[in-house]
Amino acid sequence: MTTDPHPWATTLDGLHAQVWARLARGVADRRAPARHPTLATVSPDGWPEARTVVLRAADPTAATLDLHTDLRSAKVAALRATPRAALHIWDQTAHLQIRLIADVTILTGDSVAQTWAKVPEASRRAYATTPAPGHPIPAALDYQTTPDQTFFAILRCKVQAMDILHLGPEHRRAAFDRSSGWCGAWLSP
Amino acid sequence: MTTDPHPWATTLDGLHAQVWARLARGVADRRAPARHPTLATVSPDGWPEARTVVLRAADPTAATLDLHTDLRSAKVAALRATPRAALHIWDQTAHLQIRLIADVTILTGDSVAQTWAKVPEASRRAYATTPAPGHPIPAALDYQTTPDQTFFAILRCKVQAMDILHLGPEHRRAAFDRSSGWCGAWLSP
Repeated sequence: MTTDPHPWATTLDGLHAQVWARLARGVADRRAPARHPTLATVSPDGWPEARTVVLRAADPTAATLDLHTDLRSAKVAALRATPRAALHIWDQTAHLQIRLIADVTILTGDSVAQTWAKVPEASRRAYATTPAPGHPIPAALDYQTTPDQTFFAILRCKVQAMDILHLGPEHRRAAFDRSSGWCGAWLSP
Repeated sequence: MTTDPHPWATTLDGLHAQVWARLARGVADRRAPARHPTLATVSPDGWPEARTVVLRAADPTAATLDLHTDLRSAKVAALRATPRAALHIWDQTAHLQIRLIADVTILTGDSVAQTWAKVPEASRRAYATTPAPGHPIPAALDYQTTPDQTFFAILRCKVQAMDILHLGPEHRRAAFDRSSGWCGAWLSP
């Protein structure tokens, strides 16, 4: 009787499972929408900030997500001041808006050496810019890239809450949080 | 000699003009990436929040952008506490990340009546949900939509600063701000 091409959206369990399926696809497939979440943080001055990041790992059991970054970036300064982030994904195919709130731990040094060893040479250039990201330079290309593990950090995002919106023939919105064991509740959209 | 398909990215003026061209396209074309920015705010508790919004107007001369929202939404509560937002757009075709910081004024009542009169009937349902957006409901579809101008607000975003990243064959990043008349400066990417 339903014309909804996304039957998983009609139950809380189905929605929750779909979110993790989309996140897993983001890790595996560089063309998937969840590959590039928008990460929002609060700057040390208390202002909102947002930028694209790359989703590198998703663990549905622990409900954690990993991002990689340059330790000198503004997002690290923001997370040191306010160690919480919002992650936002709009998945056009699934008609799904995924909004996550996570507590973020900044991993560096020995704890990231094993991951660093697996980062392809080409990708390492992302953690290598001199002068540091965001510093003024006289001309557009007055910077060098020299990969250096010193600058490499993993942002481990421990998801605390989800706000999920499905824009099908009907709109459905649900909240899930860690403290209730992710059982979920419907919200007015 | 250049293989860059985006010659506008090589000058500060070119980048700045391209940002406003992409924003204008977002207003006019519902399939353009700038149609759906991510709006990041700081919640009344001081935490980051992010969600998709629809870009409704862009004025390059005043450097303002308009969004429409339900006055009862969490983003309005956030903006009442911290009246500043970050807007984020990733334009895949232009290889362009647009990050804007804006001071936000919440317009309601008589000041939005003229705009409300032009909102199509189908779109008005977005400012009409009972109970209010985000309120718990027993089942997924336990809500009604009854359009009501009382709930309609324009978020007028006065852009204060831009951080623009072009991911061409070379990466180029530039900052522009209102106080310097948008003349721009290159940053290390």
